[in-house]
Amino acid sequence: MTDKDFLERAIKIAYEGIEKGTGPFGAVVVQNGEVISESTNKVVESHDPTAHAEVLAIREAAQKSGTHDLHDCILYSSCEPCPMCLGAIYWSGIKEVYFAADRKDAANAGFNDEFIYDEITLLPEKRNVSFKRIKGVDGREVFKKWERFENKVQY
Amino acid sequence: MTDKDFLERAIKIAYEGIEKGTGPFGAVVVQNGEVISESTNKVVESHDPTAHAEVLAIREAAQKSGTHDLHDCILYSSCEPCPMCLGAIYWSGIKEVYFAADRKDAANAGFNDEFIYDEITLLPEKRNVSFKRIKGVDGREVFKKWERFENKVQY
Repeated sequence: MTDKDFLERAIKIAYEGIEKGTGPFGAVVVQNGEVISESTNKVVESHDPTAHAEVLAIREAAQKSGTHDLHDCILYSSCEPCPMCLGAIYWSGIKEVYFAADRKDAANAGFNDEFIYDEITLLPEKRNVSFKRIKGVDGREVFKKWERFENKVQY
Repeated sequence: MTDKDFLERAIKIAYEGIEKGTGPFGAVVVQNGEVISESTNKVVESHDPTAHAEVLAIREAAQKSGTHDLHDCILYSSCEPCPMCLGAIYWSGIKEVYFAADRKDAANAGFNDEFIYDEITLLPEKRNVSFKRIKGVDGREVFKKWERFENKVQY
């Protein structure tokens, strides 16, 4: 199967998502030329705001691989990944992503992807969601303890 | 309990994360003045690259609430949320976030948060992870079908 075949499979899953009443998104993770996981979006049905197609496919691929490290995998998505899914891709180590529709197409269909891309570049205090710090509460000491911790697995 | 108390609780969970061998991050979700979920980071132990403290706390809060919509919740995090967690916050509808350490502190401790914040602003074709499209594969038709779908639940 070619990259085009896998991307078309992701789109097929997005169509199935509409029929199942979940959402119009689909994602496929491929390792060594084989599909190891695939998912539609399941936010509403699973009561999970993080249950985007890409996140679910990445989670399942990592479970099956027995590691959080998917550097040898390729992700195919029916739509450009939103910032949450982009973050998940980076943390998973995936190096290659193919997508079909983009964030503007998603915005036109009523999804907030583009809005979140715009918000993320703003300073925390300028965003629509309020990001605040509290004077006198310092989280840096935790990292210093982590740096001294001998048994850490860096990820 | 005050915002300061909840934020300090998130930091305490981060310390516990080091002792448990998970990771130096902690998050707490509060609804109507009560903690409804809390978590450390569990990426390595759970083989899940998306298992950041904030994502896990949001998922648990949504499960307990029976809805993906957490607009009446506040999130407290030991560190500034990474782009993935920021996306999860927006999708959950949370409107208020308190954090202690920031992305630069996380970078100094060896975490990629700042790198991903930098990457996300780049055009897809300019990033370290390759984001590609394939000529002739169009994902927009799926959204058109979604728009015509009468039973959709917008999220």
